[in-house]
Amino acid sequence: MNRPAVVAWEGDAVAFLDQRRLPHEVRVERARTVDEIESAIRGLGVRGAPCIGVFAAYGVALLRNTIAGDHEFRQAVGRVREARPTAVNLAWAVDRVLASGDMLAEAQLIAEEQARTDAAMAAHGAELIPNEGRVLTHCNTGPLATAAGGTALGVIIEAHRAGKRPRVFVDETRPLLQGARLTMFELREAGVDAVLQSDAAAASAMARERIDLVIVGADRIARNGDTANKVGTYGLAILAAHHGIPFYVAAPRSTFDFTLRDGADIPIEQRDAEEVLAFGAARVAPEHSAAYNPAFDVTPAHLIAAFVTEHGVLRPPYGESLADFEFREALRLSR
Amino acid sequence: MNRPAVVAWEGDAVAFLDQRRLPHEVRVERARTVDEIESAIRGLGVRGAPCIGVFAAYGVALLRNTIAGDHEFRQAVGRVREARPTAVNLAWAVDRVLASGDMLAEAQLIAEEQARTDAAMAAHGAELIPNEGRVLTHCNTGPLATAAGGTALGVIIEAHRAGKRPRVFVDETRPLLQGARLTMFELREAGVDAVLQSDAAAASAMARERIDLVIVGADRIARNGDTANKVGTYGLAILAAHHGIPFYVAAPRSTFDFTLRDGADIPIEQRDAEEVLAFGAARVAPEHSAAYNPAFDVTPAHLIAAFVTEHGVLRPPYGESLADFEFREALRLSR
Repeated sequence: MNRPAVVAWEGDAVAFLDQRRLPHEVRVERARTVDEIESAIRGLGVRGAPCIGVFAAYGVALLRNTIAGDHEFRQAVGRVREARPTAVNLAWAVDRVLASGDMLAEAQLIAEEQARTDAAMAAHGAELIPNEGRVLTHCNTGPLATAAGGTALGVIIEAHRAGKRPRVFVDETRPLLQGARLTMFELREAGVDAVLQSDAAAASAMARERIDLVIVGADRIARNGDTANKVGTYGLAILAAHHGIPFYVAAPRSTFDFTLRDGADIPIEQRDAEEVLAFGAARVAPEHSAAYNPAFDVTPAHLIAAFVTEHGVLRPPYGESLADFEFREALRLSR
Repeated sequence: MNRPAVVAWEGDAVAFLDQRRLPHEVRVERARTVDEIESAIRGLGVRGAPCIGVFAAYGVALLRNTIAGDHEFRQAVGRVREARPTAVNLAWAVDRVLASGDMLAEAQLIAEEQARTDAAMAAHGAELIPNEGRVLTHCNTGPLATAAGGTALGVIIEAHRAGKRPRVFVDETRPLLQGARLTMFELREAGVDAVLQSDAAAASAMARERIDLVIVGADRIARNGDTANKVGTYGLAILAAHHGIPFYVAAPRSTFDFTLRDGADIPIEQRDAEEVLAFGAARVAPEHSAAYNPAFDVTPAHLIAAFVTEHGVLRPPYGESLADFEFREALRLSR
């Protein structure tokens, strides 16, 4: 792919491809301070749960090199860890780096593992896509979202590489249009047949365009399988159930939060009303309008046909399959 | 309301408030030729099924005055009648004016009837809204959409006037943002509490914000109750059913098409991909992307709790209630 790395360690900075400017401008920014790291995450220069994890891991390693005092370092790490509340990969990556002897080596390991993880997810998930399958997806879950191969979009791209010729219906994903800007860009890079649609057209596509499956990513998954993901995901899961279309979630182990019993415990980030009232420089709604703008919603486990993970496809009952997944992963880490 | 009339007869022109420019610019345009009439409808300068009907009625009366030859007149009328395919009010109004002895008087009668019709719908529909009810709506169905009091939004505004203090969750309604631009504008004019949301946030609002009911307008209703309306309506109806929330359609007699057995026979307008690929003046998706952009979708009758009409609230079974509605209306017209 003819673009800079999504996230890169540069010794005195963590470089990142500024995802706010894509697809029209390919610009690399560099974060050198805790302010710049926090603001890249909070402002969505870096986005996508696994990608945030990789970026934050490098960020913590950088801060360890640049902040002398332990107290100041812990404060700075706290700010990075809490820059966004919903994606659990952020806290997971920060804690892993903090607990390690060599922070930079651990950050690099997290980035490398993400690439292996994504490849494994893609291989498992591609099995779920039929030949010439029509796939509906929401938000962006490709290489940009993981700084590696991607989650749900990685699965679709792998199916394409395997010769299955999928056709992808891409929700534009308001308010920030990650589908229109990023997913359409990545599917074009990969040579996959893609059609953009308004989020509101998804039900029509299911009824009239013979969608075979829906596949999305996740920001946090509770141990019963309830899944927080980009707002709109929950509605898609209901629409898919209504049309008898399987609804899949592709996510690595680092997105599962086994400390949470169910989705009611997942914190949902409320974002600024301006994201809905305007688009880019263009104001849409009348001045001083109010907006309801949750960044995420929670899809209950019973609407999810399966989770695609690096260890395979997990099916209901999730009480069993997710517990088994947690156990096997813990066993692997303890070796 | 401190704005020009939505549609107005001016003797040598039909004036209209250009709805593409709202809410930021209040500009009146004038259509004097068949080209200008057709382009105002097709380009959405005038929109909303009943409003298109009123505008086209005046347009035909104007063309009768300005086009000498019968053949040329019939050709021009045909172009107006077919400027948009889904809203049946357009053909209904054109045919009514053509069949009358005095075309201008008939057009004026259609406009006056629309005002009475909207007032009656508002009174019947307001009964369905509880005190401090939380109402979700889609697209624009206010005064701008009917050149009178409005359909679904007229119902909400009437409930507000009656002191019920509704709170309205407004879908922004991509791709053309009639909710953000027009509904938010009209609710502010009327002093109604309103919150804008991305279309994709509707399911979250239903699950977390205790929505009491959904009410929308319609572009064409078949005799079994299947309803074509702005794309996204069908999905909302499924989401409402999933959450046990009643889903209402407010529409006058002129939106019912008793010649159609069911929704499969309603023609659905496919609009230009550019509407989805761009956001206002801002290009969003990569160049040359494909888009799926139906302007409407069809909600099956079984998802609709009731129709709010000028003759009352019609409940299932619609085979009976709609047949009775047609019969009473025919009886009224024959007197």
